Amino acid sequence: LANEEPTNPIESDRYRSGHALRFKTLGDAGEVRRRMLAAFHPDLMRYPIEFVFGEILQRPGLDQKTRELISLTMAIGLGRQREIRSHTRGYLNHGGTKEELVELLIQSAAYAGFPAMIDGAYGVIEVFEELGLFHPPDVEG
Amino acid sequence: LANEEPTNPIESDRYRSGHALRFKTLGDAGEVRRRMLAAFHPDLMRYPIEFVFGEILQRPGLDQKTRELISLTMAIGLGRQREIRSHTRGYLNHGGTKEELVELLIQSAAYAGFPAMIDGAYGVIEVFEELGLFHPPDVEG
Amino acid sequence: LANEEPTNPIESDRYRSGHALRFKTLGDAGEVRRRMLAAFHPDLMRYPIEFVFGEILQRPGLDQKTRELISLTMAIGLGRQREIRSHTRGYLNHGGTKEELVELLIQSAAYAGFPAMIDGAYGVIEVFEELGLFHPPDVEG
Amino acid sequence: LANEEPTNPIESDRYRSGHALRFKTLGDAGEVRRRMLAAFHPDLMRYPIEFVFGEILQRPGLDQKTRELISLTMAIGLGRQREIRSHTRGYLNHGGTKEELVELLIQSAAYAGFPAMIDGAYGVIEVFEELGLFHPPDVEG
Amino acid sequence: LANEEPTNPIESDRYRSGHALRFKTLGDAGEVRRRMLAAFHPDLMRYPIEFVFGEILQRPGLDQKTRELISLTMAIGLGRQREIRSHTRGYLNHGGTKEELVELLIQSAAYAGFPAMIDGAYGVIEVFEELGLFHPPDVEG
Amino acid sequence: LANEEPTNPIESDRYRSGHALRFKTLGDAGEVRRRMLAAFHPDLMRYPIEFVFGEILQRPGLDQKTRELISLTMAIGLGRQREIRSHTRGYLNHGGTKEELVELLIQSAAYAGFPAMIDGAYGVIEVFEELGLFHPPDVEG
Repeated sequence: LANEEPTNPIESDRYRSGHALRFKTLGDAGEVRRRMLAAFHPDLMRYPIEFVFGEILQRPGLDQKTRELISLTMAIGLGRQREIRSHTRGYLNHGGTKEELVELLIQSAAYAGFPAMIDGAYGVIEVFEELGLFHPPDVEG
Repeated sequence: LANEEPTNPIESDRYRSGHALRFKTLGDAGEVRRRMLAAFHPDLMRYPIEFVFGEILQRPGLDQKTRELISLTMAIGLGRQREIRSHTRGYLNHGGTKEELVELLIQSAAYAGFPAMIDGAYGVIEVFEELGLFHPPDVEG
Repeated sequence: LANEEPTNPIESDRYRSGHALRFKTLGDAGEVRRRMLAAFHPDLMRYPIEFVFGEILQRPGLDQKTRELISLTMAIGLGRQREIRSHTRGYLNHGGTKEELVELLIQSAAYAGFPAMIDGAYGVIEVFEELGLFHPPDVEG
Repeated sequence: LANEEPTNPIESDRYRSGHALRFKTLGDAGEVRRRMLAAFHPDLMRYPIEFVFGEILQRPGLDQKTRELISLTMAIGLGRQREIRSHTRGYLNHGGTKEELVELLIQSAAYAGFPAMIDGAYGVIEVFEELGLFHPPDVEG
Repeated sequence: LANEEPTNPIESDRYRSGHALRFKTLGDAGEVRRRMLAAFHPDLMRYPIEFVFGEILQRPGLDQKTRELISLTMAIGLGRQREIRSHTRGYLNHGGTKEELVELLIQSAAYAGFPAMIDGAYGVIEVFEELGLFHPPDVEG
Repeated sequence: LANEEPTNPIESDRYRSGHALRFKTLGDAGEVRRRMLAAFHPDLMRYPIEFVFGEILQRPGLDQKTRELISLTMAIGLGRQREIRSHTRGYLNHGGTKEELVELLIQSAAYAGFPAMIDGAYGVIEVFEELGLFHPPDVEG
């Protein structure tokens, strides 16, 4: 993985700090994505790690739980399914609860339409299934 | 399924009426979705059933076929694939025809771009396949 | 306006037919837009007139009122204010009613969110004001 | 304004409660909008007040400040300028700060692109100007 | 495939020319799509071939490589995954390079947000895998 | 304007370089925007200048004219009017031509719908008017 290392030495602290926050937020699922994109081209991951997780998200003024709520809200509004799953994990990893996620989904119906709520709900449910926290009903029965 | 019952007695007529219209519109495919979301949290389905199907869609002024056309048009424009499939079924279940769906898709190209038309067409085609009304060609040959 | 004439003689029937439908649909407001864009470059209006109004919208299968409903629904969902105004006029010019427009707006809230309904309502109201069919209240009072 | 009253007596508590929360959130600017839309047709405001402010936003699980953050985030992501201004006011009225708004805007750049941040910033700045909390520089100088 | 033939003889040159450019651009993957949609209804493919590939994309003023860059940029911005894959192939088939695609993806992060970049990257990577030009890492290891 | 200076000395070269490219690209109109946003909060402009203009847009692999084409295409697709005007200027300032802009607009109709083309055209025309390169017709006549 040597080719993923940042080449600019003055930025490497930011990369390391960003990687640590990103791993705490997205966990192993984020690592799978990082390795895939970095294998295609290392710079594709350099900016999300250095700029987003190493700089923007570490600014004072909003805590990580609130920041994940913002990222997840954006993902639901814009219909980005991959991000819905990532930031559902991120929100839970920073202390968010299922009850709050349900409220976010219901409020999304009012502000982006019920299709946004339903697509969002499927993304959230998928994460809960993967975490072993939800067992889907026998919906064919 | 008792936990899906609305808790507010003054609203239960609306729930029952909404559920009936929803089942007529979306059929078994809608039931599969309802059970999944209601199993995760009952309120996720309470509003689509009470508010959308039980109230909004039952207002006078537009018939159900026209209302499904509106919902499907929104879904094609906004690129919501799950909704495209649902409201293709809904449009057919309220008297819409394949010819009208083709016209909607072609007009969508003009007003939301050809990618919207093509994504929409794949959603419509998927429903026609499931209903046994279309058999895809041997596209590999 | 000679430079707005189509150069390809085999397409000029389509241009004339499209122009006639477009004028019936959008009226003088559409003419103002056409002259502005055609003055910048004639081809900018050639395709909307020949392809959209001269071909797509004249296909059988859906009547003009339904087609304007589709165009307006797209415009509300995608937040295109200029188109909301144009197709509000178009819908009225092909027999649509205020009651139907209110229903479309309310249904838009369910399928694209209340902000889409409110932005749509402002566009519709603006047209009704221009047509002298609505007098806004003294909202400052 | 009698024609704005809800006709269904069992829902009027929700209307009154929703109206109160809405006024606390959006203030006079929200009243101007309400009167305009209700004058066009009373039902256009009935659902935002009864369903959104009277029901969805009053559910437990998220406080009003967090809910306004969600609404504002949606508005920035989807590029709805009118809503950006409304929910900037709403966020401030429920205890949000300028520092938090700046952080939301910067994070929006990462999750919806810099154009979303800049359009959002103009909406936020417009509210601060109206509130007398910001005096724009002599940008022509 | 006789029913896919255009019925209007004055347009058939445009169809043939459009089909040729489309095949050069999208290759066999485009043929698979064409056969599927044309089997559902021939007119669904008539306009993409005649109007888009036979007319718009053949206008002078921009070369095919630049035009594919525009189509791909739109697809990334609007989150249309099917189009991202199609126009990644189209861009490569008209002389585009991997290096340029990486730059487009990184710039997309700035103008449409990192989720747009990441969804775009997955689409581009999928094409490179299908072409045998990229072998994904053992991301589970 | 001292409070707009970057506080981190190791980043100031990037800020200066980004500012120079941004001024060459967006000109005085960009300066007006920069002063407005920086007066509200200096960090709102730090990232567009350091990260976008100072880093992303200066990467090798795509020239500035192509990069402005990408930014403008995104803006047209996503309906961001402010950005359409900015990057119309940017595209012209890096050697783009009116003919190419017209082609981009027409292609946008195919890939994002005619409303995107028309909104885009109004943005482009507004810039040409400001530059004294286009005089609108007497559209009322």
